[in-house]
Amino acid sequence: MKITIIGAGNVGSHLALTLHQAGYSILQVYSRQLSKARSLAEQVGAAPIHQLSVVSPESELCLLAVKDDAIGLVAHSLSDFLPQTSLLAHTSGATPSTVLANAWPRWGIFYPLQTLTMGQPADFTQIPLCIDGATPAVQQALQEIAGKISHQVHLVNDEQRATLHLAAVFINNFTNAMLQASHTLTGEAHLPRDILKPLLQATIQKGTRQEPRKVQTGPAIRRDQQTIERHLGQLSNHPELSTVYKAITSYIQTF
Amino acid sequence: MKITIIGAGNVGSHLALTLHQAGYSILQVYSRQLSKARSLAEQVGAAPIHQLSVVSPESELCLLAVKDDAIGLVAHSLSDFLPQTSLLAHTSGATPSTVLANAWPRWGIFYPLQTLTMGQPADFTQIPLCIDGATPAVQQALQEIAGKISHQVHLVNDEQRATLHLAAVFINNFTNAMLQASHTLTGEAHLPRDILKPLLQATIQKGTRQEPRKVQTGPAIRRDQQTIERHLGQLSNHPELSTVYKAITSYIQTF
Repeated sequence: MKITIIGAGNVGSHLALTLHQAGYSILQVYSRQLSKARSLAEQVGAAPIHQLSVVSPESELCLLAVKDDAIGLVAHSLSDFLPQTSLLAHTSGATPSTVLANAWPRWGIFYPLQTLTMGQPADFTQIPLCIDGATPAVQQALQEIAGKISHQVHLVNDEQRATLHLAAVFINNFTNAMLQASHTLTGEAHLPRDILKPLLQATIQKGTRQEPRKVQTGPAIRRDQQTIERHLGQLSNHPELSTVYKAITSYIQTF
Repeated sequence: MKITIIGAGNVGSHLALTLHQAGYSILQVYSRQLSKARSLAEQVGAAPIHQLSVVSPESELCLLAVKDDAIGLVAHSLSDFLPQTSLLAHTSGATPSTVLANAWPRWGIFYPLQTLTMGQPADFTQIPLCIDGATPAVQQALQEIAGKISHQVHLVNDEQRATLHLAAVFINNFTNAMLQASHTLTGEAHLPRDILKPLLQATIQKGTRQEPRKVQTGPAIRRDQQTIERHLGQLSNHPELSTVYKAITSYIQTF
C-alpha cells in the first residue's frame, strides 16, 4: 500500500512517521510550504511536493491531514489527478464524511483520537483510531492499516465522530481549563505548584473506574449552599470563574 | 504522643488507621453511634466512646474529624473535659481556625488534601497534609506527626486553606463533572466506554507538566465560532451542559 500524505502539520507528521515505521511506503508529502514538505519527506523517504497537480497516480491512499475548512477544497482539487482506484481519507474529528463524499467515491476517515504535539513522539499503539469509509471494502482497507499502528481501531460513523469530537472538548479542553483555574487560584495564594496533583490523580482514577456521577463529591452534590456561597465570594475577582463555578454546580445537581 | 480520634467517618477512620500503623497510640475513638466507634476502635487498639464527657484527660492530641458544622460545637463541649495542655486539631479544608480558636487556645489544623473512600486503604505518604496551629510550638508538634505519615507536609494558613478547598473543587468535583459529561455523551452515541481514556491521560500529563493555559487547544482558544455553534447544537437536549460549555469557553478565551 503506497501512501501520500497531504499536510505536513501536527497530524500529518505523526501519521507519516508512524506509517513509515510500520513499513508502509510513503510516496509523497505535500505542504503548501515546500520547506515543511521537504523536512518531513526526508524523514520518511518520500518526495516533497507543494502542488496538488503533481500528486502521484501511484498513491493508493491519500491521507488528508489539512485544516478542517480546507478538506473539501483540497479533495476537489485532488480528484482531477488521482486515479479512480485510490482511497482519499481525511484525519479530522470535526468534518463530516459528506465533505469528502461530494468529491470522491472512495472516501474514508482515519481519525486519531489524541492530542498530538509536533515534534513529540506519540505511542500510536495506545491511540484510538476512528475509521469510516464509503463501502465495507474501503472500511476494511483502512481498518487493516489502522490495525498495523494501533491496538484500538474503531469503526465510527459521522454522528458518533461528531459526538466524540464534542466529548473530547469536555475531556481535553475543559479539563485543562479546570487545571488552569486551580493553577491560577493556588498561584495567587502562594501555594506549592504541585500540591493538588495527588488529588487530581485520585480524581481520574476514581472517575474512570466507574460512572463518574457515582463518585461525585463536594458542595454541589451535597447542595451545601453555605459553602457554595463562600466559594463564589472567593471568586469575586474572577467573574469568568464564578460563572463556570455556577454552571458546573447546576450541572452536578442534575446527577 | 497519645491521640484520641473524634469521629469514625471517612477521614477519622483513615487517620486512626494510618497513625496507628505509624506507631502512635490511639487512646479512644468517639462516634455518636457506639457501633461505629467500636468497629474502628477495635482495629487500632483504642477504647470506643460515644459521649464526649468521657474523653480521656490523657489525650495529648484530639483530632476532630466531624462534619464542618459540628466542629465548633464539639470543640466547645470538649473544652470542659480536656486538660489545658492538650492539642485540639480539626481535619477540615473548609472550616477556618477561628471556629476552634474560640473554644481552645492550643488549636491546630490537620487537613489531608485528598479524596478518601471509606474502606479503601490510602497511601498517606503521597497525601499532602496541610498543617496550622495556634503557636509555632503547636505547629511544630503537628508537623512532626504529619511528617511520620506523609512526605508532603505544608504549613498552610486559613486563607490559603480556603483557596485550596476552592481549587480542590475545580480539580476534583468539576473535573469529575467533565468526565460525567463525556460519559453521558459517548454513552448516548453507543461508543466504547474507554475510547477517550488515552486522551484524558495525555491531557493530565500535558496540563501538569507546564502551565495549563500554555497547552490549551480546541475551538474556544482558536475562537472557532463555527465549531462552537455546532457543538452547542449537539447539546440542544442537554441545556445544563450547554451552559457549562458556554461558561468554560468564555473562561478559556480570557487565557
